[in-house]
Amino acid sequence: MTVYRDKIEVKTREMDIIDITQGVQDAVDRAGIEDGMATVFCQGSTGAITTIEYEPGLMKDMRAALERVAPRDAYYAHEEMWHDGNGHSHVRASIIGPGITVPVANGRLQLGTWQQIVFVECDVRERTRTLLIYVFG
Amino acid sequence: MTVYRDKIEVKTREMDIIDITQGVQDAVDRAGIEDGMATVFCQGSTGAITTIEYEPGLMKDMRAALERVAPRDAYYAHEEMWHDGNGHSHVRASIIGPGITVPVANGRLQLGTWQQIVFVECDVRERTRTLLIYVFG
Amino acid sequence: MTVYRDKIEVKTREMDIIDITQGVQDAVDRAGIEDGMATVFCQGSTGAITTIEYEPGLMKDMRAALERVAPRDAYYAHEEMWHDGNGHSHVRASIIGPGITVPVANGRLQLGTWQQIVFVECDVRERTRTLLIYVFG
Repeated sequence: MTVYRDKIEVKTREMDIIDITQGVQDAVDRAGIEDGMATVFCQGSTGAITTIEYEPGLMKDMRAALERVAPRDAYYAHEEMWHDGNGHSHVRASIIGPGITVPVANGRLQLGTWQQIVFVECDVRERTRTLLIYVFG
Repeated sequence: MTVYRDKIEVKTREMDIIDITQGVQDAVDRAGIEDGMATVFCQGSTGAITTIEYEPGLMKDMRAALERVAPRDAYYAHEEMWHDGNGHSHVRASIIGPGITVPVANGRLQLGTWQQIVFVECDVRERTRTLLIYVFG
Repeated sequence: MTVYRDKIEVKTREMDIIDITQGVQDAVDRAGIEDGMATVFCQGSTGAITTIEYEPGLMKDMRAALERVAPRDAYYAHEEMWHDGNGHSHVRASIIGPGITVPVANGRLQLGTWQQIVFVECDVRERTRTLLIYVFG
């Protein structure tokens, strides 16, 4: 069993939800690992990773739910530290979580047909994100 | 170190929360792995996996909390794509997350006494779910 | 590839959010593993693990968001079982999740500069928590 380390970069805007499935599959291909798992992790505290059916409607619905959990216009004590208007971003990212582990079999991510791996940009400005992809197997 | 691949099926109804601890432990037993971890993953975007104390009251409480995050009767843009009434299901599953990784020692899942692994069916109709269980060690 | 098993203990009070990054890094150091991953897992159903920027304001903001998802003073069916006033604790912990997997390279946790690993104590009384740290690589 070995570990293969890789990364991808994604350019994002506020509350972007980006399908990174192909980027992760490409890393699995480069790893040359048949059976094991892929761990995807966001270096940074205002981005999150999960799976979702990637269609435009659900991206709106996901944002609406996150607005219920951590409304953009609520008071955030974080604001008193940095004044960068992203207290809600941190809270949303922490609740979803910074990473995901997906099984790999026969060299393929074992996702459902309507299930994509997404990066959820919770921050309020344009970012270039580095996502780590470690493949084990 | 090796990887052992297995799966279980569970039959579910709307918003079922099902204790899959024994099913995962059985897979660990079949793996014959003493020390490592078990990754459990739902293939599909309207189911989620986490841990909870498995008693009937908490299953109601969990549903009530998910209703706050993504109310069933809210507007969902997802509805305009599929008309299958499960926009809330997708959002709930994405926030909880599709998988979990649990430590294994001496051939046993290292859970607390009142901590069970559960599959959370967020969808609105009966499903037969395939859950992947990969044991590493 | 090997697995190294370790644990740390943390003393907590109600809704404490505790920076455990150094404790996890110390376990990675003891493991002597250069490249791989660290899985951190809470044995118990009222504690959770995630990452956040560890500054006092965000700890308040995180608690406020969890109060929206599972308010302390709402009705919980769990109360009818145990009468220990922690129905909200269980629900909060289950939604965040009991564990996290963080990549390790060159013997270091691959976190962002403003990203710390935290234990979120969702329970209502003082606890001594055992957190499992398994390092693979």
